[in-house]
Formats: sequence, C-alpha cells, structure tokens
Amino acid sequence: MGTHSFQAPKGTRDFYPADLAVRRHIEAAWRSASVDCGFDEVDGPTFEHLELYTAKSGEGIVNELFSFRRAGGESDYALRPEFTPTVARMIAAHAGSLPIPVKWFAIPSMFRAERPQRGRLREFFQWNIDTVGAEGAPHDLDVIACGILALERLGLTPRDIQVRISHRAAIARMLAALGVPADKTADAMTLLDRRDKLKPEEFAQRAGALGLSADGIARFDIAARATQSLAAPLADLAAKIGISADEFAALDELRAHAARLGILEWCSVDIGIVRGLAYYTGTVFEFHEISGAERALAGGGRYDGLVELFGGPKMPACGLGMGDVVLANALRDRKLLPDDGATLLPRPDVFVISAGGEAAEVELPRLVMVLRRAGLHVRTSSKTTRNVGKLLGDAGKARARQALILGAELADGHVALKDLDSGAQRTIALAEAVAVLRGPLGA
Amino acid sequence: MGTHSFQAPKGTRDFYPADLAVRRHIEAAWRSASVDCGFDEVDGPTFEHLELYTAKSGEGIVNELFSFRRAGGESDYALRPEFTPTVARMIAAHAGSLPIPVKWFAIPSMFRAERPQRGRLREFFQWNIDTVGAEGAPHDLDVIACGILALERLGLTPRDIQVRISHRAAIARMLAALGVPADKTADAMTLLDRRDKLKPEEFAQRAGALGLSADGIARFDIAARATQSLAAPLADLAAKIGISADEFAALDELRAHAARLGILEWCSVDIGIVRGLAYYTGTVFEFHEISGAERALAGGGRYDGLVELFGGPKMPACGLGMGDVVLANALRDRKLLPDDGATLLPRPDVFVISAGGEAAEVELPRLVMVLRRAGLHVRTSSKTTRNVGKLLGDAGKARARQALILGAELADGHVALKDLDSGAQRTIALAEAVAVLRGPLGA
Repeated sequence: MGTHSFQAPKGTRDFYPADLAVRRHIEAAWRSASVDCGFDEVDGPTFEHLELYTAKSGEGIVNELFSFRRAGGESDYALRPEFTPTVARMIAAHAGSLPIPVKWFAIPSMFRAERPQRGRLREFFQWNIDTVGAEGAPHDLDVIACGILALERLGLTPRDIQVRISHRAAIARMLAALGVPADKTADAMTLLDRRDKLKPEEFAQRAGALGLSADGIARFDIAARATQSLAAPLADLAAKIGISADEFAALDELRAHAARLGILEWCSVDIGIVRGLAYYTGTVFEFHEISGAERALAGGGRYDGLVELFGGPKMPACGLGMGDVVLANALRDRKLLPDDGATLLPRPDVFVISAGGEAAEVELPRLVMVLRRAGLHVRTSSKTTRNVGKLLGDAGKARARQALILGAELADGHVALKDLDSGAQRTIALAEAVAVLRGPLGA
Repeated sequence: MGTHSFQAPKGTRDFYPADLAVRRHIEAAWRSASVDCGFDEVDGPTFEHLELYTAKSGEGIVNELFSFRRAGGESDYALRPEFTPTVARMIAAHAGSLPIPVKWFAIPSMFRAERPQRGRLREFFQWNIDTVGAEGAPHDLDVIACGILALERLGLTPRDIQVRISHRAAIARMLAALGVPADKTADAMTLLDRRDKLKPEEFAQRAGALGLSADGIARFDIAARATQSLAAPLADLAAKIGISADEFAALDELRAHAARLGILEWCSVDIGIVRGLAYYTGTVFEFHEISGAERALAGGGRYDGLVELFGGPKMPACGLGMGDVVLANALRDRKLLPDDGATLLPRPDVFVISAGGEAAEVELPRLVMVLRRAGLHVRTSSKTTRNVGKLLGDAGKARARQALILGAELADGHVALKDLDSGAQRTIALAEAVAVLRGPLGA
C-alpha cells in the first residue's frame, strides 16, 4: 500500500472535530434560514445516471465528472456535480401531487474532477434552495432574501457581501436600445460575461463586430462595467448608459419588492452578471465579497425550462446554490470563526469526577448513564488519577459548564457541584443531581 | 436520454420532505446520544483511495465497491463502503496530538455495489461511534450503552431489541474446555458463525472434524445455540454447556459493568455472535430485533489492530456501526414513525395572510421578512385568493401554529392573531407582532 493511501484523496477533506464544527455552524445557518423561509429539506442519491448531467449540460461535462460503472453493470453513473438536475428529476416524477410552488432546500456534497484551486475542491458542500412553479419578482427575491438571511445569521453584513443582480429581459432591451441587432443578443451577452477577461481594445473590437457604431461601442463599454446599489434609482444607471429608464423595467420590479423586504442595501445591479446563457431565463444573481477578489459565494437565478427537460411539465423555477468553501474563507477572513471551530463544539453540561474510594468508583458509571439518559451532555475521565485538581483541569479543558465530584460526602448521599464558569461550589443531594442539572440553575 | 435516467439509480433513494424528515429524526437520535456520551463528530471524504479498503479487507472486496479513476488520473478511488478505515487513517495521521481515548462519531453515507435486498441498499447512512486508545469492559460498554441510548430516544425498548454479546477470549476458553485443539479455534469460530445456515447433521460432521468426541460434539452443539439474558448468572450458561463458569470471566466482567450502567435488560449473551474473525479481537456484539427475523440493526466490537494497519501506533479500539435502513423498518413496524414522516416536519410558527387591500399587500412581504429575521418559521400563500377562510385552511394544512391576518384593522396598526390549535383569536398591535410571537404565549 503506497503512503498516499494514508491521506485523503487530493481535493477532498478530513473533517476533524473542530473542522466539522465549522461546517455544522455554516449548515445550521443555511438550514435555519431555509426552514424559517418555508423551504422543505430534500436529498437525493450521491450518484446519478451520467445521462442526467449530459442531458442538461452536453457531453462536454463528462471530463469534469467522476463517472463509473459497477463491475458487470450496464449503467454509467456520475458523482453529482450539482443538485439541480436531481431536484428537477424528483419534481418531474411527482409534478401532479406536489404543493405549488414547490419550495425545497438541500445541503448535499458535490464532486468535480477538476484540478483543486483556492475556493474550489473536488468534494464540497453546497446549499441549494429552489422555488418551482411560481414566477415573478417576489419569488425571485424570496430565494435571494433567504440567502441573505443565512449570511446575516453568520454575522456577515452588506459591508462584507453584495448580491449582484441582473435580468435577462432588462439586458435584452438595453442591448436593443444600444443598437445590437436581435440575432446578436446572445453574442453581446457573452461579451458582457467576458468583460473582465478582455483588454479594452479587444473588447471594443468585439463590440464593433456586434454591429455597433463608435458611439454604441462607447456606451456598451460603459454598460459592461455599470454597477450601482439597488437602493439608487435605476434612472441614474440608464442615464449613464444613455438609454431610457423604461428598458430596466424588470430590474425596477425587483428593486420595488426588495425595498419592501428591507434588503436593498444588500443588493447591487450589475450589468456584467450573465451566468449560463442556455440555462437562465430571467433574473440572474451572484453573491460576492465586497472586494470582488474571491470567487462568487453563491449564484443562481430563474431557469424556467429545467423541469420540462427531465420529462416534467413546463414549470417556472428560480434557485440559488452556495458552497461551503468560499463562504468559510470569507468568514475566516473576517474573524467570524473564533478559534477555527474549537469553541463551536458543543459544551459538556457536566464533567463527573471520582475523588477515589470504592463507593465513588461504583457510583460514577451509574450516575453518568442516568445523567445521559436525562438528556445531559456528560463527560468523564478515563485516567487512573484521583487527584481532583488535575481532573478539574481536564473538565475545564473539555469546556464543561459544571463538575460533579464524587467524594467523601457520598457516604451520606451527597456530591459536590462546581460551576466551572464562576468557580462557585455547593453540595447537593445525589438523588437530586438530575433535577439540579436540568433545572434553570443547571444546564 | 433513456427513461431510466429519470429515476434514481437502482438501490439509491430520493428523499422527498417526509422521507428526509424520517432520516433526520433517526440522525437526531444518533447525534444527541453521541454528544451526550461525549463523542465528537467527524467526517471524511465520500471516496477514498481504493487501497485503503483492500489493505483492510483484501482484493476480494473490490467487486463489492463502486470504484473509479478520474479521466487522465492515476489513482483508483472507491466510494466508501464503511467508515472505520477513514477513522483509522485520520487517527494514524495525528495519533500524537489527539486526546486519549479518541471518542468520535460520524453519520456518513455508505455505498455497496451489491444487488439491493430488503434492509440492504447501494447507498445508505450509517452511524459510527469509535473509542480508540482505551481498553477494558467499561470502554466496550460505553460504546454499547451509547447505541442503546439512541434506540431509547427513538422509542424502542428491550422488548423490541436485544444486544447480543460475545467475547473472543471467553469463546476461546470455552472451545478449549470442550476439547477443541488450539490450532482449530478459528475453524470452530467459523462453524459457530454458520450455525443457522447448516443442517444438524452437517453441523455435527464439521464439529467432528474439529477433533471433538461424541460428547464434545453434543456440548458444542448446545453452545452454538446458547443464548441467555445478560441479567442471568453466567454460571447457568456454563452449566448448560458443561464447562466451568471461570471460562466466561471476560463475559462476566462485561456483565458486572452493564449492571452498574443499568442496561442489563437490553443485553443477552449469544455464543453464536462471531463477526469478522480477522478483524475483531475481544468483545463482539450485534443489535437484533427480538424476533431475529431481520438483518442486524447494528454490529461492532473491539478491534485492537486497526490503527496500526494504517500506519499509526498500536492502539486498542472499540466501535459500533448502525445503518438507517433496518432501523427505519423496525421503527415503522412498531408504529414509531407517525404518518411516515409528515408530522416530523418542522411546524411553521406563523402563517401570514392578506385579507386584501393595498395596505395589506404592501405590508405582508415586509412583515414576513421581519418575522423571519427574528428567527420565526414563517409561511404564506402565493395564491391570488384573499378569501381568509380558504387561506386559513391552507395554514392548517401547513400545520402552522398560528395565523396572522392583515385586514381592515391594519389602518390603525393592528392585525388579528389566530391560534390554530385552540382556535382562539385576538387583535394585537402590528408593532408588537415579533414580541408576541417570540414570547411565551407565542411560538
């Protein structure tokens, strides 16, 4: 066996207790935001028929997947690279009997057979929320607001993260107003998408190929970099680009509803947000760190054709995906993950100590199990020492809230209870240990 | 795309909301029992180097695994069929810096490329708890008691489930006392393991091949089927087999400690529990339905050689694995999963209804977001009807605890709050909605 077998496969992670506490902390925020916003949790297989992914994304995706076949089997499978095809398949199978809109969330593991990079691993976790069967700005913003709620619960603010929003219909009307012919709309959107990757002269040359005049190219260039807070009137943005504010009607609808929800300061309009052209059909958005230096924390939008693609009826849909890796980096950079997870571990309610003696040795395991059966988080030491001071030190290292010490008082049915935060110690009846520890003065 | 692509792969599951609520219910019992018993949660990669599994189980395991290689890659990977090799690898990598004993739990998904059967799927979830670095009956029973605690929290009792326990050292001494030569001990254990699969005459013939006399064969046959409550004295069992009770010293130690923990009635001695011969080194156990008709719910024991196998120091270890499939069947058979999960879904704290009118339509989305930001589970309707009776019906179907109705009273800043369990309705100030709903009389 090679020594590499002693390590996790490249691009995957071992989650030791403190590492997992960080992941659980993030997942708890995702889950509570989802539930509070009325989404129901679902899950699907970790691997699917390979065709489920090629149907949506074409054969080109195969090289980005971990795919396999069972020995002697006939089907090709792939580890899921995204969760939306599973959602669409599950909805298509039961479209007639699900309450509309279907509001689902999931926190599955995902897999990509690419070279690992900062913010991009071969196995990661992704929060997915989807609203299927409803259309309009309120439903798009229901998804976005849920994403914002989770970030708020993790301690992030609009000074840390902005949701950059665009809308296919608004962009199409803007492009027409700038003079882009209808058959060049898709090319123009591709160019918007690539704005940050092209040199200015290259960008101008490609804009010219869209059939734009010199003036049109200049305005298209302004538009491609145009971004402003959703709190500001869209007429300002339209004026900067030199088009009528009417062209941004779809964005204005999002703006009006975001104002009602009280999330305007979290949102920006960003004409350069394009995302998958063959896939998204209306609102598109990405969650970015304010610096813009990192990968997007989340992305999503409206995709009205997806359920139909997997054999279901035509159903409008809007969704969001947010991975754990970039988010955890953002939290860590802002010191929102104290001690890299150690203090996120659940604190023991009580640490039970034997001060020695036959009675204590016999009583300790009994008491520990009674307390655990009562729903208390109980730890004890497996050391042979009966030095109470040393064992209290271990209790403190375990971050226990209290210590129960079985000592000489056990002879008349009493034990010592020490509050490890305040240091206060008192004697209680052994028979009342559960009641005291579960009561308002206890755990 | 073939129509089979619209289905989950054979042997895997789609978890619709009520299905996932059942899984989460089981996982919550596993997790709370683990935490209360002082285990820390860990996780590892969903796939590992294939060699991690062949190192432990030999090349023969390859046909039972989903294995694959990245396009252009050089490593063979396999979806994890069990979690223990990952635990051993992770401990071996940091053996010097982990607190001893290492007490870890995990709830990973597992994969087996076998033909699916009742209680055995290609993807399932398994609870793992492991205590590494400590030996002795108290540590073995720490693991067993944690398993029992989880079952208790799911509503199961010793009348439903028994933990069948054996011990390698006790069995070896029993076999010697019956006249099995030392070099035939492993063969004899293999025969014990197969007791239910062989016809009586075949069993007797193989027992003879162990070198046993006619009397020895008869007593071995009794031993192979011997089982009794751990609450009964082991001398009874020894007498039945015709050996000295001293041979069962290792089992008696388990019995004494189980008595202290108060779990005797959950446990039986079962000489026929063998499990992997090359793997387990002391205590072995299986959790079974009382009828014995189903597969084991859980299994485990002491395996002192494992960490060393993966490059770490020699460390004693004991662990348990419990899958979700057989357990869910046991709960379902006993009506311990009401409504197949629907009533396990989280109940909305409040369902917000607009009775119509411009003010209510504007106020509703604002209020919904305010309540969600306050940590309340809030649902609303996306229907166009403003018939309050119909919408209250939807609130009831959603199992909401209360309904907030935005109606005419909104003009002077009031809303109606209806308790959907009692039917009681009152008028409250809109400004106090959060305080009322979060207070002791609210959610």
